[in-house]
Amino acid sequence: MVKQKKIFLDESEMPRQWYNLAPDLPNPLNPPLGPDGNPVSPDMLAPVFPMNLIEQEVSQERWIDIPEEILEILVRWRPSPLVRAYALEEALGTPAKIFYKNESVSPAGSHKPNTAVAQAWYNKQFGIKKLTTETGAGQWGSALSFACSLIGLECKVFMVRVSFDQKPFRKMMMNTWGGTCIASPSMETQAGRNILAKYPDTPGSLGIAISEAIEAAVSDPTGETRYSLGSVLNHVMLHQTIIGLEAKKQLAKVGIKKPDVVVGCCGGGSNFAGLSFPFIYDKINGADIKVVGAEPFSCPTLTKAPFIYDHGDVAKMTPLLPMYSLGHTFIPAPIHAGGLRYHGMAPLVSAALKDGLMEAQAIHQSECFEAGLLFAKTEGIIPAPETTHAIASAIREANLAKEEGKEKTILFNFSGHGLMDLVGYEKYLNGELTDYEYPESEIGENLKMLDGYPLPK
Amino acid sequence: MVKQKKIFLDESEMPRQWYNLAPDLPNPLNPPLGPDGNPVSPDMLAPVFPMNLIEQEVSQERWIDIPEEILEILVRWRPSPLVRAYALEEALGTPAKIFYKNESVSPAGSHKPNTAVAQAWYNKQFGIKKLTTETGAGQWGSALSFACSLIGLECKVFMVRVSFDQKPFRKMMMNTWGGTCIASPSMETQAGRNILAKYPDTPGSLGIAISEAIEAAVSDPTGETRYSLGSVLNHVMLHQTIIGLEAKKQLAKVGIKKPDVVVGCCGGGSNFAGLSFPFIYDKINGADIKVVGAEPFSCPTLTKAPFIYDHGDVAKMTPLLPMYSLGHTFIPAPIHAGGLRYHGMAPLVSAALKDGLMEAQAIHQSECFEAGLLFAKTEGIIPAPETTHAIASAIREANLAKEEGKEKTILFNFSGHGLMDLVGYEKYLNGELTDYEYPESEIGENLKMLDGYPLPK
Repeated sequence: MVKQKKIFLDESEMPRQWYNLAPDLPNPLNPPLGPDGNPVSPDMLAPVFPMNLIEQEVSQERWIDIPEEILEILVRWRPSPLVRAYALEEALGTPAKIFYKNESVSPAGSHKPNTAVAQAWYNKQFGIKKLTTETGAGQWGSALSFACSLIGLECKVFMVRVSFDQKPFRKMMMNTWGGTCIASPSMETQAGRNILAKYPDTPGSLGIAISEAIEAAVSDPTGETRYSLGSVLNHVMLHQTIIGLEAKKQLAKVGIKKPDVVVGCCGGGSNFAGLSFPFIYDKINGADIKVVGAEPFSCPTLTKAPFIYDHGDVAKMTPLLPMYSLGHTFIPAPIHAGGLRYHGMAPLVSAALKDGLMEAQAIHQSECFEAGLLFAKTEGIIPAPETTHAIASAIREANLAKEEGKEKTILFNFSGHGLMDLVGYEKYLNGELTDYEYPESEIGENLKMLDGYPLPK
Repeated sequence: MVKQKKIFLDESEMPRQWYNLAPDLPNPLNPPLGPDGNPVSPDMLAPVFPMNLIEQEVSQERWIDIPEEILEILVRWRPSPLVRAYALEEALGTPAKIFYKNESVSPAGSHKPNTAVAQAWYNKQFGIKKLTTETGAGQWGSALSFACSLIGLECKVFMVRVSFDQKPFRKMMMNTWGGTCIASPSMETQAGRNILAKYPDTPGSLGIAISEAIEAAVSDPTGETRYSLGSVLNHVMLHQTIIGLEAKKQLAKVGIKKPDVVVGCCGGGSNFAGLSFPFIYDKINGADIKVVGAEPFSCPTLTKAPFIYDHGDVAKMTPLLPMYSLGHTFIPAPIHAGGLRYHGMAPLVSAALKDGLMEAQAIHQSECFEAGLLFAKTEGIIPAPETTHAIASAIREANLAKEEGKEKTILFNFSGHGLMDLVGYEKYLNGELTDYEYPESEIGENLKMLDGYPLPK
């Protein structure tokens, strides 16, 4: 008897609604604030985002219909498989059942297209012709180029220069889907020109790239360009909940009413939220589920940062968001999990942590790569460096179950494959990987800049 | 109503037997010949391959059971999805229904693991501890490293130096799965040392790498090392037939009794054989199916070469095989589809062509990359350069159906994704791609070396 490994849903069983955590939070979300300290109104965001997405951003509806045209594109790879990791369980000698939701099967190789497709579609509906965005390591820029290609929008990606130079394949991926990718800072925006005038050799940063992408959107005289963000915002979390909603149906197919532990890695928060929010809904309604966010020790937003109002970007172009933040000027150490090098955390994830609906673990990258290698050699797929954080955390939980002698069900999000990010593995295997210490004093300095800012309730 | 795109089989519906075309050929296969011109006996191959695989190589059984332990590994990604390419059909305005079998979902990104897993398992069963192989662009070396990792064998890959230097990520992939990858020619074998003494700056070739891999296997004094080949041989074709056997079941699920056209790209022949042989079986039994092998115009083995006895490698380490061949000294032009740059063709595929069971098309790489881009922008997945040949050929067939006004069913093999091979797309987009002419006179010279060799019947 060959054991069943993958649990599929028929396309006809795909969730028809996204889940919005906002109305179910024990304490209402603090609103985003403008430069004057007053709440930002939807109108003020209109030059940046289309109104249909702004409505989702502030929605208090629990369930939001997924338009059929979006489902038509998502079914190219969704429902994604839920996989029982028998070989990993055996290698660990754990009594736990480990399942992972395999989001690496999307054409861009990660969970990012779930929201890229939705955002591109809503923009197109609103009459927008072109999207701008920033990308660090390149996952998000690739996903948005992919989505714009299928939906029929132009796409322009400002890629942090150091990554642009180090990862030429990401740019080629975007080009193949018809996207334009340029190194940031660039001469195309005032923000870019200002930085280049001052620091001609700067490696760039995500903060600068965000500033350029927003400027490129709002300064288009035709008014037909908008900006798109791949994480952090409420509507991005919303679009990702299809992951957890599918996983619940898939677990039910093999007779599992609820997992005992749900794990995701946390950068801006979107893949974590996508898997976990539907289970946090059950938790709010009485289910006993441990929900764990795994983050890099060198960028410990959930485990060490204060809950404050801070900007989403270095250049303070975004409103103030209520979140755990290490300070918007904090530059995380150069770990390989580029997608987890973010100073803040999605307001919805921050609220879940503050309200005790989840807990967090910080992990060093050497432990993560060790976990990633074990996964590759047992389950077969090479994980993205970001994803190795979720695997390392799931392994910790599986070892705990072994100590306790409990047959727990552990579910984690396999957010992406690592075929475009193999350098980290090479360095780990060559013993060249550094585990960075957490720069407590530096963060203290960063946070001082926020003295006098309002505090969330 | 969201249209169904992917047709899945349950893991329990996976084929339990491989299909062997050999006993169904109208004319029996010519045997491989040794240096003396006499047929090679199984015993003579024993230092190179384990006896259980040699038995498969010469088997005349039509159906061969797939061991359950091999299925246990294949179910990590199999049955692979069969996908209806609605968006591509729409872009072409064709009345044809286009389906593709998505083999890119394997952890190594191509169809190669289907035989890598089987070969590793049979070697392990036979008591072998280590496999050696060669790789050109890296697909096969990655797949065998992956398989050895999961089965528990050592794996050593000799990678053609020019690819080793140009594609460092392939080596990292192999290392991540625990394989060893060294540039060929190397100082580790006599064959490599001889070449390096003569040509210290040689870029290497597949022929040299094969010689080194075979030498490394047969010269291991413990006798616990064997050699593994990723295409060409009968047992490799056999292991790949799971692709076509699944596809038949999947088409039946949507009420299609038979495709009208079946397309695969042809290098050594394994992905083509994997999809098409089960349909050629139907064709032999009376079904009206057009079977097309698509190959590069610059390496036109099926469309221009004679059917002869030739060596599988430049260094003449292999027996003489009965096949279409451009001559074992022919060095194909440097097209991006590295996996299709092979002078010969699998004896089983060659026999199918000779016996009129298939036809062939030669296509220039610019047409292929154009097809690949259209596929990426409609269906979403970026194809490997090899795979773009099958897509280009399927598009030709879809356009033909349009001209004829016929609602044909076209099925092709999506043999792999192109995430590790984006340079070709970049060059195509930049207008830097060359379409190489077919060097008729050069091949004439190569073939002269075979004067006096025996000819197959």
